[in-house]
Amino acid sequence: MQNEALQRAKGVRDFGPAEKIARDKLIQTLRSVFELYGYNPIETPVMERYELFASKYGIGQESDAMRETFKLKDQGLRDLVLRTEFTVPFARFVGMNPQLKMPFKRYQIGKVFRDGPIKLGRYREFYQCDVDVVGVSNPAVDAELVKLINTVFSKLNLEVVIKTNNRNVLNAILSKCGVPEESQISAIISIDKFDKIGDVGVKAELLDKKINAETADEILKTLALTGSNIEKIQSLKDLLGEIDGLKDLEKTINLVGADNLEFIPNLARGLAYYTGNVFEVFLKDTSQLSSSICAGGRFDNMIGGFIGTDEKYPAVGVSFGLDTIFDALQIQNKGILSKQSVAEIYVLPVSKENFAPAFQLVEKLRAKGIAADIDFLERKVGKNMEYANSYGMPWVIVLGDDEVKQEKYTLKNMTTGEQVSCSFEEICTKVK
Amino acid sequence: MQNEALQRAKGVRDFGPAEKIARDKLIQTLRSVFELYGYNPIETPVMERYELFASKYGIGQESDAMRETFKLKDQGLRDLVLRTEFTVPFARFVGMNPQLKMPFKRYQIGKVFRDGPIKLGRYREFYQCDVDVVGVSNPAVDAELVKLINTVFSKLNLEVVIKTNNRNVLNAILSKCGVPEESQISAIISIDKFDKIGDVGVKAELLDKKINAETADEILKTLALTGSNIEKIQSLKDLLGEIDGLKDLEKTINLVGADNLEFIPNLARGLAYYTGNVFEVFLKDTSQLSSSICAGGRFDNMIGGFIGTDEKYPAVGVSFGLDTIFDALQIQNKGILSKQSVAEIYVLPVSKENFAPAFQLVEKLRAKGIAADIDFLERKVGKNMEYANSYGMPWVIVLGDDEVKQEKYTLKNMTTGEQVSCSFEEICTKVK
Repeated sequence: MQNEALQRAKGVRDFGPAEKIARDKLIQTLRSVFELYGYNPIETPVMERYELFASKYGIGQESDAMRETFKLKDQGLRDLVLRTEFTVPFARFVGMNPQLKMPFKRYQIGKVFRDGPIKLGRYREFYQCDVDVVGVSNPAVDAELVKLINTVFSKLNLEVVIKTNNRNVLNAILSKCGVPEESQISAIISIDKFDKIGDVGVKAELLDKKINAETADEILKTLALTGSNIEKIQSLKDLLGEIDGLKDLEKTINLVGADNLEFIPNLARGLAYYTGNVFEVFLKDTSQLSSSICAGGRFDNMIGGFIGTDEKYPAVGVSFGLDTIFDALQIQNKGILSKQSVAEIYVLPVSKENFAPAFQLVEKLRAKGIAADIDFLERKVGKNMEYANSYGMPWVIVLGDDEVKQEKYTLKNMTTGEQVSCSFEEICTKVK
Repeated sequence: MQNEALQRAKGVRDFGPAEKIARDKLIQTLRSVFELYGYNPIETPVMERYELFASKYGIGQESDAMRETFKLKDQGLRDLVLRTEFTVPFARFVGMNPQLKMPFKRYQIGKVFRDGPIKLGRYREFYQCDVDVVGVSNPAVDAELVKLINTVFSKLNLEVVIKTNNRNVLNAILSKCGVPEESQISAIISIDKFDKIGDVGVKAELLDKKINAETADEILKTLALTGSNIEKIQSLKDLLGEIDGLKDLEKTINLVGADNLEFIPNLARGLAYYTGNVFEVFLKDTSQLSSSICAGGRFDNMIGGFIGTDEKYPAVGVSFGLDTIFDALQIQNKGILSKQSVAEIYVLPVSKENFAPAFQLVEKLRAKGIAADIDFLERKVGKNMEYANSYGMPWVIVLGDDEVKQEKYTLKNMTTGEQVSCSFEEICTKVK
């Protein structure tokens, strides 16, 4: 590269044809499942007002997330940000559209932006795919989201485990063990690290947070419950009584009825805004990829707080991490990058005189819905075959005078090398 | 709205379900045609380096476009911009990927950003859909783009006229009339305003630009040529000889063979970088919408200049204006906003006890590929019907004990009001 202006910004990516074809297909799978479940697409802008994101019901002026937000100004010197996530814009959208009938189910797929450190798998522009319902406190809708998650990953042919817990249950356990309410969020943030630092690490953090050793041991013992989902719930009912959190979990688990929803009492999800069931999805085989590929939960207070009315806006949603799912598909070698090009067939005229008929033939193929391409460079057959190969085009037709005259074409299968003489109709059948 | 943080940034839009469903469908139509023609998707980032866009082969530091570019910095204080168009990033992509086999055909659909004045139909975030080929100087590929444009608008059911001209022809006419080379770009920028200011206005501008009245009249007379495409080309051949520009035009027109490609000698396209054929597409009935809905042309020098090698990168492309096309479809009342929701069927359990079977029924419908939704709020039938209606869901099932027991469902057509008793299989057939 001779021109030094030819560089990308730091932490962003280009997607060439093979990767973009695969990513579009993945997005299409997500979209189609979201729509099967009755979630409607919406689109909010890339740029939002700084005040929206910085507000206390947004991500908060003092938060790490706000520090990593790209900030800019328009020519009127208004402060803007590039969105870092979709929940805050969704709350704004609901607030600005009081005519929306509740429940309102929506999904949004698009890029979000974070000016954070660059690591493997961490970018400054990346996709998020959010599915949320506002207006339903009934945990049956949480069960619907679990069904939706299962459908997505079964369509993607990825074996996953969906882990669930409930914030109220976690708070009740902490209360029962003697952790005062004001310390519970802080304790939950430590508990959230179970997978990373183990119970020794979590205990050390709890002690640091002025929770005494006996209490910490009691918490760890309670969270280490084993057995089936039903058995774990029963143990906690014995300990905590018939609390709402357990009822919600039980209702969700019963409605789902699937065997890959697992109640994990130490699952926490670090964010403060969750109010009920939480979910986190992992590959069944975490040796391949240990980070979660989808996560979410109930956030019943956020939207109402945002809008600032007395009306309740119970909400629940999950967010799919497109980049991580894409990594998982690549690791499991699901052939996701198999297509180098959209073109199915390449027509090469053997001489200048055959160009016009070749051009018409290609148009006829396109009219039949077959993605077709043609040589414009008057290259020799060998060069053209190389070209078709480099783009992975599966079929080639070499068009000479005889073929034009007889309307019989020699169709070459680029995978097997086999050649057959075909009419136009036969080409369409073979190639489609 | 009580919370004043709940505002959008200036000049940006939200798309609610009805509009987003329609826009996604429009994008899908464009994509499918681009792919039929063998154009591969790529994706470049929203953020690019300031130096890339400001460079002299970019949009240029001093240009109006650069003044309207959103600028920002990352935490490393690197200067960034939000892309204002796709051609500069495309040139960068080609430059950074020397392994790409030529010709390289790509399309990109996405948002671009301009910090300009807000007017009706002008936004600060809007979509562009670009289709370009690099590596072919043969105007046969220009003809392919005309075919592609025709296919797009015929699929959208919009009657259009594609206007074409050639920059070399325009330059030759100006030379023939005695305009020196260094004044030709400036004259072309005036000629570009024919549709807006008429020949009186163009003449006045030419006089302002120190072109004498006789020359100006001569130019206007030549550009006012009438007749068929072939007749106009013949007249110009008589005047200018067998120049390349006329040959390119002729080859394109002959290959296209369609009746809605019109050679308009006074079509100019304001941008300086065009080097050959140019195209501009309008509705046949311009009384409804007079601005162009797609435009482009050949820019053989840009990419090579950018990359800074001696290698040639001839290129041609067109850009579809998604917002304008969307306006055109709405004006022509093509029913584009007819769908308020993706859900096809809404199931309402008549009592709490029917919820679990209703939930299973909805799951079964989804498994059959039918987008389905269910009442989570235990609402009465009337309220539920209102809800289904407000989202335009075409079918409703009211599920009571009898229906569950007999596996016979009452399916209501929300348009006609008709109700029929159906088995599950019959529902699937009717609703799909």
